[in-house]
Amino acid sequence: MNKMLAPGATIGILGGGQLGRMLSVAASRLGFKCHIFEPGAAPPAGHVAEKVVTAAYEDEAALRAFAEGVDVITYEFENIPTSALDLLESLRPIRPNRKALAVSQDRLVEKAFLNDLGLRTAPFAAVDDEIDLEEAIAEIGCPAILKTRRFGYDGKGQARLKSPEDAAQALADMAGAPSILEGFVEFSAEISVIAARGVSGEVACFDPGENVHKSGILHTTTVPARIPEALRTDAVLIAARILNALDYVGVMGVELFVSKAGLVVNEIAPRVHNSGHWTQAGCTVDQFEQHIRAVAGWPLGDGARYADVEMLNLIGADVEQLPELAKQPRTQIHLYGKAEAKPGRKMGHVNRVL
Amino acid sequence: MNKMLAPGATIGILGGGQLGRMLSVAASRLGFKCHIFEPGAAPPAGHVAEKVVTAAYEDEAALRAFAEGVDVITYEFENIPTSALDLLESLRPIRPNRKALAVSQDRLVEKAFLNDLGLRTAPFAAVDDEIDLEEAIAEIGCPAILKTRRFGYDGKGQARLKSPEDAAQALADMAGAPSILEGFVEFSAEISVIAARGVSGEVACFDPGENVHKSGILHTTTVPARIPEALRTDAVLIAARILNALDYVGVMGVELFVSKAGLVVNEIAPRVHNSGHWTQAGCTVDQFEQHIRAVAGWPLGDGARYADVEMLNLIGADVEQLPELAKQPRTQIHLYGKAEAKPGRKMGHVNRVL
Repeated sequence: MNKMLAPGATIGILGGGQLGRMLSVAASRLGFKCHIFEPGAAPPAGHVAEKVVTAAYEDEAALRAFAEGVDVITYEFENIPTSALDLLESLRPIRPNRKALAVSQDRLVEKAFLNDLGLRTAPFAAVDDEIDLEEAIAEIGCPAILKTRRFGYDGKGQARLKSPEDAAQALADMAGAPSILEGFVEFSAEISVIAARGVSGEVACFDPGENVHKSGILHTTTVPARIPEALRTDAVLIAARILNALDYVGVMGVELFVSKAGLVVNEIAPRVHNSGHWTQAGCTVDQFEQHIRAVAGWPLGDGARYADVEMLNLIGADVEQLPELAKQPRTQIHLYGKAEAKPGRKMGHVNRVL
Repeated sequence: MNKMLAPGATIGILGGGQLGRMLSVAASRLGFKCHIFEPGAAPPAGHVAEKVVTAAYEDEAALRAFAEGVDVITYEFENIPTSALDLLESLRPIRPNRKALAVSQDRLVEKAFLNDLGLRTAPFAAVDDEIDLEEAIAEIGCPAILKTRRFGYDGKGQARLKSPEDAAQALADMAGAPSILEGFVEFSAEISVIAARGVSGEVACFDPGENVHKSGILHTTTVPARIPEALRTDAVLIAARILNALDYVGVMGVELFVSKAGLVVNEIAPRVHNSGHWTQAGCTVDQFEQHIRAVAGWPLGDGARYADVEMLNLIGADVEQLPELAKQPRTQIHLYGKAEAKPGRKMGHVNRVL
């Protein structure tokens, strides 16, 4: 399947959150239909998809029917059970491929992979028990951060160690899950590169954005990032090296720290990424359409940036600012259709053209 | 219902074509769900809507259930039977209102309405029979064009009269439908203003675009239109006068001829309009979102143009150019999800950022 998927074809998306929702909308622009597979009821992506399958990842019959109803499968989050992927992959192509998922599902594997590519990461060590943690602290020092190797996002499954005395509590917070201790990187800024790779191996990157986090959740991304031109080039080269090494097809979010020693890779996400939402207001083709183009075997689109943009996340009660936001000029609102505004929940974002 | 419709609410759209499809996508950005009412099977809008009702406009039970499932009703085309509107309006607000529909459904009523507002139109006369037509030709002269008063679009229901000898054939082409003879307007360009009016009466217009037709169907719209600044202002004032006179809520397409005597109103369409598709590539808020904002009682969005754009319609077999188009820089593709590329059928469009 190296040729262009024809309009009218159906793309299967694993996961029905806001990323799936915006992917489905982008797919419609290219004439595709989307089917969403999501265990949770009434997923945001379901409002703009041809079909929603509500089933568990353990439901083999549902997985099979889903796969048989689509032409290609992609995903909006990385924590998909291996057994589900095995079954789906036997029926339809999955893009990005399994290797990208395997690497990004496990922080330890991810960091080792990045180091093997010659890329800088924070210092790290595997931690499975008290002894590992003691040794890791001795090696890496404090402050440091203990994280579960798998299933963490938006600051969940993490514990900070200001000093070695915090070790016991941090380990308890992991609740026995295999973990990784990461040293802190001194950085002047955090940037993201949203990179895409097509089936023919061509790579295209959106202009790096500068991220600001609040309580472990992305707060704003601003383009252009305030970094020297040389680092902009470095960022793109790092992203390309990662994508090529994985024989990746689709969009990936690459988070980087700007340190005195150069760029340090913080994290990769094998999917469209919150820090790429600004592309909806600043580019002819946004990250969602770029991902669909790649997954569908189309040439990558033109993601050149033609505006300065600030993306601001609306978290929890932030969404109550809506009446004010709706009046503001140069402001593009994106809401995710979630019923309840819980604390820490991503309810939407706005793109401000600067 | 003068306050903002809250995200999570449902908007009902009468008609499931490409305009309904792009309205539904825009509604999703603001957190709304859409239900589509469409007599035809498998409508394009259905791929990106929460629900599709497939039923005739004569099906009262279906209309009632549709209305009861939504918070406000809008439409993507103007030829909706009066009986259906009567029933729907008794249950939910319809925006834009009935007056706009009544005026635009009938070319004769529309032209009289525009003249009453002091706006120029082509010379016209009602034609119901041979005698009317003879008198109309005597008054207006030839060349002229005979059109059915109702149900015409994209050049359908029209017959050109090069000379009075064409009268009999032209009248036969109308198949007994009440008609209108329109004189030709000598014009140097045709432009469109996509105008919006909110529930509070505020008006916002997108920058006028310049239209080129081919075989009676819109071929390209280019912004900016190559017209003097004074005409740009005139165009906006004309659109505002029409919207205010109708107490209009929503987006309207106003087609204007640029003549030596000034601007002449060709046609109004009480809905989003093909000549406004360029706004998807050149504005923070496009015509579809602007319409949804108005219909939902939100403040109008910022439609300032920040790029020069050419919109090119993909009609029928034009869509076969897709592999080439997909490779082109600065090109945004929009396909409508229609299964078959019949001659004259609008299959999609591209927005080229110039």
